[in-house]
Amino acid sequence: MAKSNLDLICECDNFPYYEDNRVAYTENLKNYHAFRVSSYDVTLGYILNSVVEKFPWPKEIWAIDSAAQTVTLVTPADADPAHRSKLVAESLAEAVRLECFEVLKGWRNEKYPVYGPGGEYLLEMERSATPLFGIVSYGAHMTGYVEDATGLKFWIPRRAKNKQTYPSMLDNTVAGGMCTGEKPFECIVREAMEEASLPESVVRASIVPVGCVTYTHVRDPRAGGEIGLLQPEVEYVYDLKLDPSVIPKPCDDEVEEFNLLSVSEVKEALARGEFKPNCSIIMIDFFIRHGILTAENEPDYLDIVARLHRRMEHPTASHCLK
Amino acid sequence: MAKSNLDLICECDNFPYYEDNRVAYTENLKNYHAFRVSSYDVTLGYILNSVVEKFPWPKEIWAIDSAAQTVTLVTPADADPAHRSKLVAESLAEAVRLECFEVLKGWRNEKYPVYGPGGEYLLEMERSATPLFGIVSYGAHMTGYVEDATGLKFWIPRRAKNKQTYPSMLDNTVAGGMCTGEKPFECIVREAMEEASLPESVVRASIVPVGCVTYTHVRDPRAGGEIGLLQPEVEYVYDLKLDPSVIPKPCDDEVEEFNLLSVSEVKEALARGEFKPNCSIIMIDFFIRHGILTAENEPDYLDIVARLHRRMEHPTASHCLK
Repeated sequence: MAKSNLDLICECDNFPYYEDNRVAYTENLKNYHAFRVSSYDVTLGYILNSVVEKFPWPKEIWAIDSAAQTVTLVTPADADPAHRSKLVAESLAEAVRLECFEVLKGWRNEKYPVYGPGGEYLLEMERSATPLFGIVSYGAHMTGYVEDATGLKFWIPRRAKNKQTYPSMLDNTVAGGMCTGEKPFECIVREAMEEASLPESVVRASIVPVGCVTYTHVRDPRAGGEIGLLQPEVEYVYDLKLDPSVIPKPCDDEVEEFNLLSVSEVKEALARGEFKPNCSIIMIDFFIRHGILTAENEPDYLDIVARLHRRMEHPTASHCLK
Repeated sequence: MAKSNLDLICECDNFPYYEDNRVAYTENLKNYHAFRVSSYDVTLGYILNSVVEKFPWPKEIWAIDSAAQTVTLVTPADADPAHRSKLVAESLAEAVRLECFEVLKGWRNEKYPVYGPGGEYLLEMERSATPLFGIVSYGAHMTGYVEDATGLKFWIPRRAKNKQTYPSMLDNTVAGGMCTGEKPFECIVREAMEEASLPESVVRASIVPVGCVTYTHVRDPRAGGEIGLLQPEVEYVYDLKLDPSVIPKPCDDEVEEFNLLSVSEVKEALARGEFKPNCSIIMIDFFIRHGILTAENEPDYLDIVARLHRRMEHPTASHCLK
């Protein structure tokens, strides 16, 4: 059965909303412990109760409060990000040694940052561990397209068959996660070369930052590893209108091939569920910003636009250079 | 003191969020009664308690539950929208006769629709009464701009001195509310002629629907009338790139003059608070979609993008033609 655009949004942004059902929302939260860091009165992520039970929390640095449902990294008041990150890394190393979690078998050797109130950088942790803690992660997605007399066409890659997550699914032209210290614009420029062989000069000349998409994803089997882990994500969004002579090409082993798809071909692939979930919503966001999906032709327009921009429950980063 | 872009968002989207402070959110809701219609298990708007006390609710058709804090329009199960609308109109006529509310002195003689679950049309009511019931209202805003070698310039109108709401403030090129039965695209085409003398052919040839902006506004003195009334709003957003030869001109008596402002001139006027609150956020949305405000130059980027697209607490319309 064909998936509607709202179906696709719901597959990606599938953590409940308080406004929809206050009782169900509150009930659902009982499945998680709040991840906290001492000295900061704020929840940084939600950890599934089954993860709390399995994780080998070293008692000296982790305080588990079963009544309040909190897991707190306990450090001296003068601890800095390096100190906190080292403690988390040691705990994760022990979890890896004990083979506690499937997701940690996909160790990436990339560090993702965690931010506190006011966007203060608190610590970093191994990328593959972030869904265990349910912290907000950051990425950048770019839609490369060409325009001719027949309309718009999109450069759509197919993910490699052997990729650990979402193998063989369709993707955005360029997309990547942002490691600690990286800024969205520099991230997308770097990824454009790494993933699509797009020269930096071509990208910088024409790329337009056009907003961001935010959602809270509850992981399903397609992501690999434990089911039900939370993944709140911020994806900075870019458009890149390309000259027809510029052809994206796979560069690393993450992409199988690039194909040029028309609007209706993309719509059909979306309806068949061929896109990686968070890439499908970047295409929907493009369609809305470019007048392809409108209030008059998309029955769920208002719901879709709001849910493409979910307000995160946890503190988020500021990537401002000023 | 200069207003930041987030300050401007906060002036417009100034109803609390549950995620920010669960206790404060719940406390604040005690200031309102939920507006309901019998046979529908859903809240359609929030009515300020002081309005509930003052309104001359005819007992035969209104059930006030002070414990549950609800105001319900009670009708036979087979009531249709015309029936409900007539009952509401009669109640409003009585409130006008008794001079209960300042906002009703600005009677517009325009009808705004109220939607139930699944976008079902339930009733319509006089536009000036909608803040008393705190129902979602709908409008369309268009930014008309030109582009030359020096960059973008925007056609910005100044509201008439004698306008009842927000006199002499800056506005979007074209903006208007949507009455019952009107679709967003037809609304903006109509308003473009009425407010800016832009011919239908010019508008239809180049206008692009680019999304919508949603927020919940708590009215302050600048709106005129009672303070604290709720106004959740959906504004469909359009861009119109104009040929430099096309000059918008005032047509009705709502607009004083049009001026062509550069990006930096618009930014300065925003910072001085010269734009009508909901028009300032349409400009900010334009700046984000066109890469003028970016993650790297706007410290509150993520917060701003999410709050430009607030998820409404109440059921909303579908304006789909299919």
